[in-house]
Amino acid sequence: MRRSARLAAMAKILVDRPNRIVSLSEFVDRFGAAKSTVSEDLAIIRDVFAKEGLGRIETITGAAGGVRYVPHPSRETIAAVAEELCRELSSPDRILPGGFLYISDLVSSPSLMSRVGEIFAAQFHGKAPDAVVTLETRGIPVALMTARALDVPLAIVRRTSRATEGTVVTTNYVSGSARRIETMSLSRRALSPGMNVVIVDDFMKAGGTARGLVDLVAEFGAAVAGIGVLVETAEPRQKLVREYLSLAVLEGVDVERRTVRVRPSRWVTERV
Amino acid sequence: MRRSARLAAMAKILVDRPNRIVSLSEFVDRFGAAKSTVSEDLAIIRDVFAKEGLGRIETITGAAGGVRYVPHPSRETIAAVAEELCRELSSPDRILPGGFLYISDLVSSPSLMSRVGEIFAAQFHGKAPDAVVTLETRGIPVALMTARALDVPLAIVRRTSRATEGTVVTTNYVSGSARRIETMSLSRRALSPGMNVVIVDDFMKAGGTARGLVDLVAEFGAAVAGIGVLVETAEPRQKLVREYLSLAVLEGVDVERRTVRVRPSRWVTERV
Repeated sequence: MRRSARLAAMAKILVDRPNRIVSLSEFVDRFGAAKSTVSEDLAIIRDVFAKEGLGRIETITGAAGGVRYVPHPSRETIAAVAEELCRELSSPDRILPGGFLYISDLVSSPSLMSRVGEIFAAQFHGKAPDAVVTLETRGIPVALMTARALDVPLAIVRRTSRATEGTVVTTNYVSGSARRIETMSLSRRALSPGMNVVIVDDFMKAGGTARGLVDLVAEFGAAVAGIGVLVETAEPRQKLVREYLSLAVLEGVDVERRTVRVRPSRWVTERV
Repeated sequence: MRRSARLAAMAKILVDRPNRIVSLSEFVDRFGAAKSTVSEDLAIIRDVFAKEGLGRIETITGAAGGVRYVPHPSRETIAAVAEELCRELSSPDRILPGGFLYISDLVSSPSLMSRVGEIFAAQFHGKAPDAVVTLETRGIPVALMTARALDVPLAIVRRTSRATEGTVVTTNYVSGSARRIETMSLSRRALSPGMNVVIVDDFMKAGGTARGLVDLVAEFGAAVAGIGVLVETAEPRQKLVREYLSLAVLEGVDVERRTVRVRPSRWVTERV
């Protein structure tokens, strides 16, 4: 096989499953190439990915070693994704009675959520998370894409406990939007003590849901490595969780004038 | 840039977003290569992907033309995924009180659901679906991955209608597991008349949920191009929907003897 063809195939295999370690011998066996040749191939892929902003190819040494593709969106990509999100959110067609915004199409868009998942994954990658946790329903797509980019399992917290979840841990939390006490449950089997988890959700107002998820994760003896939300509201300024990342800040919805004020979050704009 | 490096980058760009059409001029501009050179590059990628069972590179002619990567799992891959699913499902540790099986970890596994999503997408690709529809909660990961592989939006049907969904269409359906009347709602904005949709869910017993989704889709003036479920039960044999694909058939759970009988579905085994 020609080197050029082999490189296309190797790039495909690596990109198919972000963060999974592929051993050099897997490539050696599959393509019948010498180990030194495969190493050279990987150096070429690593260099072109870096040069083109297509992500990182990392080498892991040791017995379980090999190479892996790590999504690493550039500053420009992060800014572009945040701006696309803001542009979409600011459409007056999204305004619903009561000042709500229709965002179900955005939060379940596979292509947009893939890119956001890669952004969150790249931010939390250094903390070596073992799992992503989210609350059903609208947070699931972005949480799943973050978990995919990290190659870790996703644990979905339910609003009601179901027979199919087995033994569950249930906690109460204050829902920010409705300001009432609600319940969330997670299967005992979903997390283990000592795990390091990332919490991902679509929307944060007061942060009551995120706070509830932090407390629930603590009940499992697991630690929170980070929190990522797609959109936060500007008010209240004081959230119930301290450290979190958001991509967009919703400053206000004017139902009368049919305007939506939304901007990329400071974390995004300060980076660029 | 060397051809080998360019091919790795082009493969990455194509694989990153399945089914999205990339114009030749996008590659020409990005890599500063002649159009004839890019065409040759794409031919090399197409050939090696075909030879290695890594998916299809399709050329679309015309003004909006270009190339796209279409996931196309081989028969062996489909059989391997179905067998992995059955092996996982047959673990006695999954047995819960009442004969339920704990499958939440499987249905939300990013790597397993990515592969299942590609299998469903490849099966329904020929019918040119415009959207994937699922019912919250456990069907979302596999439905999202199917939508990602098809590059179409995902519409999530809710069990309760919420203010953030705007005007909704609500229908009743007979839940197979509980044999009671339940309600499902989908935002008016989620689907348009004339759309061709694929229904994807994690589990089918009598098919009541799938039947409800078919009826709901019809209320939008949309057509059903296909139904895919991860696991179906062997009983009842007669389902409430006629045509559907499943990967695994659950034949029985013996709580006393702690055994789970599950096999790949006939559609999978007959192909191999």
